[in-house]
Amino acid sequence: MEKGLKIAVIGGGSSYTPELVEGFINRHHELPVRELWLVDIPEGEEKLNIVGELARRMVIKAGIDMTIYLTLDRRQALAGADFVTTQFRVGLLAARQKDEAIPLKYGVIGQETNGPGGLFKALRTIPVILEITKDIEELCPEAWLVNFTNPAGMITEAVLRHSNIKKVVGLCNVPIGMKMDLAEVLGVEADRLEIQFAGLNHMVYGLDVFLDGISIKEKALAAASDPGKQMSMKNIAALGWEPDFIKGIGVLPCPYHRYYYKTDEMLAEELEAFETTGTRADVVKGVETELFDLYKNVELQTKPEQLEKRGGAYYSEAACSLINSIYNNKQDVQPVNTKNCGAIAGIPYDSAVEVNCIITKEGPKPITVGELPVAVRGLVQQIKSFERTAVEAAVSGDYYNALTAMAINPLVPSDTIAKYLLDDMLEAHKDYLPAFFHSEKA
Amino acid sequence: MEKGLKIAVIGGGSSYTPELVEGFINRHHELPVRELWLVDIPEGEEKLNIVGELARRMVIKAGIDMTIYLTLDRRQALAGADFVTTQFRVGLLAARQKDEAIPLKYGVIGQETNGPGGLFKALRTIPVILEITKDIEELCPEAWLVNFTNPAGMITEAVLRHSNIKKVVGLCNVPIGMKMDLAEVLGVEADRLEIQFAGLNHMVYGLDVFLDGISIKEKALAAASDPGKQMSMKNIAALGWEPDFIKGIGVLPCPYHRYYYKTDEMLAEELEAFETTGTRADVVKGVETELFDLYKNVELQTKPEQLEKRGGAYYSEAACSLINSIYNNKQDVQPVNTKNCGAIAGIPYDSAVEVNCIITKEGPKPITVGELPVAVRGLVQQIKSFERTAVEAAVSGDYYNALTAMAINPLVPSDTIAKYLLDDMLEAHKDYLPAFFHSEKA
Amino acid sequence: MEKGLKIAVIGGGSSYTPELVEGFINRHHELPVRELWLVDIPEGEEKLNIVGELARRMVIKAGIDMTIYLTLDRRQALAGADFVTTQFRVGLLAARQKDEAIPLKYGVIGQETNGPGGLFKALRTIPVILEITKDIEELCPEAWLVNFTNPAGMITEAVLRHSNIKKVVGLCNVPIGMKMDLAEVLGVEADRLEIQFAGLNHMVYGLDVFLDGISIKEKALAAASDPGKQMSMKNIAALGWEPDFIKGIGVLPCPYHRYYYKTDEMLAEELEAFETTGTRADVVKGVETELFDLYKNVELQTKPEQLEKRGGAYYSEAACSLINSIYNNKQDVQPVNTKNCGAIAGIPYDSAVEVNCIITKEGPKPITVGELPVAVRGLVQQIKSFERTAVEAAVSGDYYNALTAMAINPLVPSDTIAKYLLDDMLEAHKDYLPAFFHSEKA
Amino acid sequence: MEKGLKIAVIGGGSSYTPELVEGFINRHHELPVRELWLVDIPEGEEKLNIVGELARRMVIKAGIDMTIYLTLDRRQALAGADFVTTQFRVGLLAARQKDEAIPLKYGVIGQETNGPGGLFKALRTIPVILEITKDIEELCPEAWLVNFTNPAGMITEAVLRHSNIKKVVGLCNVPIGMKMDLAEVLGVEADRLEIQFAGLNHMVYGLDVFLDGISIKEKALAAASDPGKQMSMKNIAALGWEPDFIKGIGVLPCPYHRYYYKTDEMLAEELEAFETTGTRADVVKGVETELFDLYKNVELQTKPEQLEKRGGAYYSEAACSLINSIYNNKQDVQPVNTKNCGAIAGIPYDSAVEVNCIITKEGPKPITVGELPVAVRGLVQQIKSFERTAVEAAVSGDYYNALTAMAINPLVPSDTIAKYLLDDMLEAHKDYLPAFFHSEKA
Ligand SMILES: [Mn+2]
Ligand SMILES: [Mn+2]
Ligand SMILES: [Mn+2]
Ligand SMILES: [Mn+2]
Repeated sequence: MEKGLKIAVIGGGSSYTPELVEGFINRHHELPVRELWLVDIPEGEEKLNIVGELARRMVIKAGIDMTIYLTLDRRQALAGADFVTTQFRVGLLAARQKDEAIPLKYGVIGQETNGPGGLFKALRTIPVILEITKDIEELCPEAWLVNFTNPAGMITEAVLRHSNIKKVVGLCNVPIGMKMDLAEVLGVEADRLEIQFAGLNHMVYGLDVFLDGISIKEKALAAASDPGKQMSMKNIAALGWEPDFIKGIGVLPCPYHRYYYKTDEMLAEELEAFETTGTRADVVKGVETELFDLYKNVELQTKPEQLEKRGGAYYSEAACSLINSIYNNKQDVQPVNTKNCGAIAGIPYDSAVEVNCIITKEGPKPITVGELPVAVRGLVQQIKSFERTAVEAAVSGDYYNALTAMAINPLVPSDTIAKYLLDDMLEAHKDYLPAFFHSEKA
Repeated sequence: MEKGLKIAVIGGGSSYTPELVEGFINRHHELPVRELWLVDIPEGEEKLNIVGELARRMVIKAGIDMTIYLTLDRRQALAGADFVTTQFRVGLLAARQKDEAIPLKYGVIGQETNGPGGLFKALRTIPVILEITKDIEELCPEAWLVNFTNPAGMITEAVLRHSNIKKVVGLCNVPIGMKMDLAEVLGVEADRLEIQFAGLNHMVYGLDVFLDGISIKEKALAAASDPGKQMSMKNIAALGWEPDFIKGIGVLPCPYHRYYYKTDEMLAEELEAFETTGTRADVVKGVETELFDLYKNVELQTKPEQLEKRGGAYYSEAACSLINSIYNNKQDVQPVNTKNCGAIAGIPYDSAVEVNCIITKEGPKPITVGELPVAVRGLVQQIKSFERTAVEAAVSGDYYNALTAMAINPLVPSDTIAKYLLDDMLEAHKDYLPAFFHSEKA
Repeated sequence: MEKGLKIAVIGGGSSYTPELVEGFINRHHELPVRELWLVDIPEGEEKLNIVGELARRMVIKAGIDMTIYLTLDRRQALAGADFVTTQFRVGLLAARQKDEAIPLKYGVIGQETNGPGGLFKALRTIPVILEITKDIEELCPEAWLVNFTNPAGMITEAVLRHSNIKKVVGLCNVPIGMKMDLAEVLGVEADRLEIQFAGLNHMVYGLDVFLDGISIKEKALAAASDPGKQMSMKNIAALGWEPDFIKGIGVLPCPYHRYYYKTDEMLAEELEAFETTGTRADVVKGVETELFDLYKNVELQTKPEQLEKRGGAYYSEAACSLINSIYNNKQDVQPVNTKNCGAIAGIPYDSAVEVNCIITKEGPKPITVGELPVAVRGLVQQIKSFERTAVEAAVSGDYYNALTAMAINPLVPSDTIAKYLLDDMLEAHKDYLPAFFHSEKA
Repeated sequence: MEKGLKIAVIGGGSSYTPELVEGFINRHHELPVRELWLVDIPEGEEKLNIVGELARRMVIKAGIDMTIYLTLDRRQALAGADFVTTQFRVGLLAARQKDEAIPLKYGVIGQETNGPGGLFKALRTIPVILEITKDIEELCPEAWLVNFTNPAGMITEAVLRHSNIKKVVGLCNVPIGMKMDLAEVLGVEADRLEIQFAGLNHMVYGLDVFLDGISIKEKALAAASDPGKQMSMKNIAALGWEPDFIKGIGVLPCPYHRYYYKTDEMLAEELEAFETTGTRADVVKGVETELFDLYKNVELQTKPEQLEKRGGAYYSEAACSLINSIYNNKQDVQPVNTKNCGAIAGIPYDSAVEVNCIITKEGPKPITVGELPVAVRGLVQQIKSFERTAVEAAVSGDYYNALTAMAINPLVPSDTIAKYLLDDMLEAHKDYLPAFFHSEKA
């Protein structure tokens, strides 16, 4: 056991990497990461080197036994790895910019995870992740794949249904963010608070909220819909919830639920933001430039605080906690994306769900939820239908599947708009959608 | 067996009644209806008399042994009945007018069955139908309740979950209309055609289409989305389906699906219609006035052709066929609303579904459907969540339930609009919502 | 359509064949069988010729346009067939004799369908039926496979799970026999009676019984447990049911249920019969010899009455009715073995069940049953576990699977006896179990 | 929180009580039990006083702040309790003696939990436990009911389905015993070992076995079926498992499984034991007499070692651990009987299952199991059918239900024997079965 761990980070040139490195450093006493391989593609080589050098400085500063490897050779990084994390972006931020901007032309929210933008991110990303799972099967069959690449729910669904890999977990910082924000709003220490999470990625609800183990749901719902205390994420406008609605559904929504329960207001917000600051992708581009300028500074030996603006707060916390709990069989409770197996009634047995699990050496085991409240179940089921259709489209490259996914997405208001939007986006992302452009139609 | 049947028609003053009478006359050789009791409320007495007199003339003309009774005493009509049909409208057309007009103020489609209008129709109607089921329990416990009152799906759900009545069927003319229209578009005799119906009321799909028993699904889908041949109903604009979308979902939608898959276009259409001809309720009012003028004519001894404009085509066909098949244990296949019991996977076991059944003397038995196609399942599940929440609200009179139902309806674009709309409609329908106005809030 | 049908009968030399031929002759006006191919293996050639000649005489006598082909070449028979029926016996009656006799040595009922005997019949037969399905896929992919070979439930399960054939139906004469016997006991015409069948092959219950469409369940249960009127089959001792038990379970058991609900008495019966007349296989051998002597008689031009003693009464009725209803899209109700798809709650979605179906041109569609009564559900589920384990063993040739199937069978009283019995039977059937004797163990 | 806990022990005169007291003493630093109320019925007063005095001496010796109350007034004990434990025996050991001896007359194993004996224990006990739940509802509605009374599975099922109490847990020492025994056989420390338990009470399997979090299932199965190392319980003969069978089912059986998988051998064993030492009840009677003699000794201030012979080893461990983890929201993993909610697929959602749970302040939450292995699923489902039928019989007092439960029990070999046995046992237990002797039949 004491041989030390090898971890491969696909998309290692990401601006998030320093947070991950910090997480491994902080846990080094119980999580003996000896080799950290940062892999990227040629287009990302410059960033990889910048972030890799920072990582090395951080390790030196920490004075621990961990070696940082930088490489463009994915297979070398994977060989013999114990954990593989994925945090890459097919088509880079330019693609995200299109995912967000093109739908707005049609009066539709892009929503880069469960909306039309997310559909295209899935279409671009799923073929790549399935290639990676084949490499894992061959080069490190015992490794756990820990995926943060969005749309994390659909990617987990794709890996569960279309790969031979069993050891996969999808991760998101939304649940931990909800907990941290709620703790702040309630004025309590976060570690006294627990939330019973259940749903899908970016479509997760807090079914109950506990302080020191005792349900404080009503108080939490009141706080969450208090006009003066709206919680959200860096990348989602903190539009206020209608308190009576939150009382009615009786569960805590996640920030992304605003797209579905406040569609009109969110669209208005995004259109205005687009006019003024551009898409979220544009904003992120600026933040990234700023971050990499910081990272280049050879004096910098720790994760800079500005990284939090990036929207990925608590990312290290989620990822490193998970890896640590698997490695050490901690059996603590964490919300992750994993195979349902009946944990949430009404969602297919074989589908990915986001749900509280106990984390064991053999991976996450969902804690049984049973039936979701009637009022929220339908939306979760509808998004799962969308996700599954999108995954089928990504795997098949079938135009009609893709159109169906687009048209049934609740953010898309008609079959005709779906078709215009699909055709426009297919053309825009042509270079990253080989499966679609070898097929007949379109 | 030859004692003859007693049938009670709640809402007997409806303009539809002559079609029902015609249906019983046509089947009299095998369905011995001896007593037909038309019941209505005092506000409907004039119409009841007009339509009742016409019914009597029709029976005399037909020369059969059937007596028409007109009464305002529901209990007398129910006592010892074999079948009870319900086709009443709480609040009359004036209420429907509000169901359709108020949402348009907020840029929302009213949709008097599964939309905000349907929610309020359910809130007004469910308490009344549950009173009727109590009377049935007491006065004619062996009777079948055949409900056509909309929203038929939610009313069947309410009776299944909140009454002691087991013998209930919900009926709709949408499936038979789809079959007739498709036969016409395909140019074949309707009785050679069968459609495998499954879903919910006004949310039913044709999963497959058979001509002489052989699947012609692809041809049928092409015909259904042929821009030159759009099928619809009298009360739903025949906006054309996107052919590639229909090919993608691979099933035949019903006319009402346009509200969900063509929301923007349908809203535009309704807004324009509202400006020009008023709501559908306004149109129906005109048609009804015209119909009752015809009915008054003592020369009239048959159902007038103009009744078809009313939107209730094939209504007699559906209702009388069902009663006939139950009475005669015909074991033929008819699409009705009944308890799921696992026939459609992914919909609760105890919920109402609209599905092909074989019709036996012991009622409808659903033919097993299994899983709905992934792409359409989610919407059906979402509408079922809405329906169940609406039923709970109707039974409880709980403001927060009602708001939840409104906000999760896919036609309602935000929680805030839901609240404004709810409050406005609650006020408008106050007189017919006693449960809500005895409760604390609102 | 009027090209006429080609039917291939695998195991055409069976003594049952004349009944099948008679069935096709009787339905010739609506079921235009033009070619009837009787196929058998070389060991069965003599019987094939005898029965084939009788079939030809029957056809000539009937004066219809149907040609009988006799062949040892299965592929020739299958090429272009519209229906394939299977009624073969791997290892012939000698194998059945062992299936029944060896378990008795260990104080265990052999039960050639769901017991240890049935396990070995499955192990011998499933590899052969899967070969046949591969031929069907290649040579007549549109054909329906109608299987009567026992154990019909496990064989249908194997085809559903391990072949590419979708068009398969398993058939049994137990349900029709129950109906005929019950009609006789009740003194009513059989066609006025209907039974709601649900369960598994040879483990099917009548959940309700209708006379002219009206439930007479209590009367039927009383009749079925009347000590003076015990119904059974030719091959199952008509030991009387305990009337209070039948009243308690509230459903009609099938004759085979005696093995599970009267295990001790049936074992005693079988042991005694074994001492006196030998196994049922021995009896059948005698009957068969007698039958083939009759068949040889060139004067014989019709099915001889003695065939009924064979235990296959109403076999023609079940098989030809099914084929006729498929061909003519009759949509009548017949109990067959087909994929569950949720029709019976608590049984896997993909498993074979025996259940009332409407029979369409696209095959049988199960009528939804919902939950089986609690008291009978468990046994059905246990036998399904046994069946699935047995199918896995047959496909894998895995010794441990086979032992597991043997030990969990409710007729086998211990793991140790299971092992002795398994080893003994494996040795006895060695020649017909190639999969097991190429594997390592055993 | 620091008010201290009140615990009511129904059946406090049990010989097990000292172990429970010891458990509370050992955990007193984190589980502040201030009042321990031992309740019993008048027939048990003498034992109550003996064991109560011992408990007081133990507390004094431990020097902690806990008061022991002895009472025959259940309502006083319940008032304001935080936890209620139940460990009573309706009819005392004399009834158990009959449960075990009468079936042997018919050649049937009595099996006082899931067999015919267990059926009668359920019939006697369930009406009493339902009375207790009504008291709890009234007197301590926030209390947790922790039931050890056998048959714990059926009692939990009855409370879940027929009471208004939600806070109920069924407890058994079988899982912890399996773990301790396996640790010993494997020669490892028990706390390094975890077993994934799933099934029903006394019908629980170890689906997997982990050492330091890593699966060692194959090794564990080999050890469990090693002829030299057979594990069992004090009250179950340690007959050896067939190693190939254990390999075949691929899961760890519990000691009680011998009744179902080694029925013949266990029956032989019990018959022989009956001839020599009497039933297990007779043995226990002797042990109890001996124990109470020890308890009377005023010098005794700790739990005597002889208590372990009683068959209740680790009972304190299971009970006190559970209460402690609930009180302190420990979120550790413990196997208990609780509502399924989908944790084990194929078992009804609302039924009790025995399964690993995380134990929170809001009670146990099952860790999702998914599908049980096919080979063991059927027996679990069959026993659940038996349990549910038995519960219905206990609640209704219906003779036919009781007969059905008896006849479908897998240890009972025929409907006729079931009837004789039922009638005999009903008569023998007449005094404790008021529901049956007010009904008409029997
Ligand atoms: Mn995320
Ligand atoms: Mn309708
Ligand atoms: Mn059969
Ligand atoms: Mn126990």
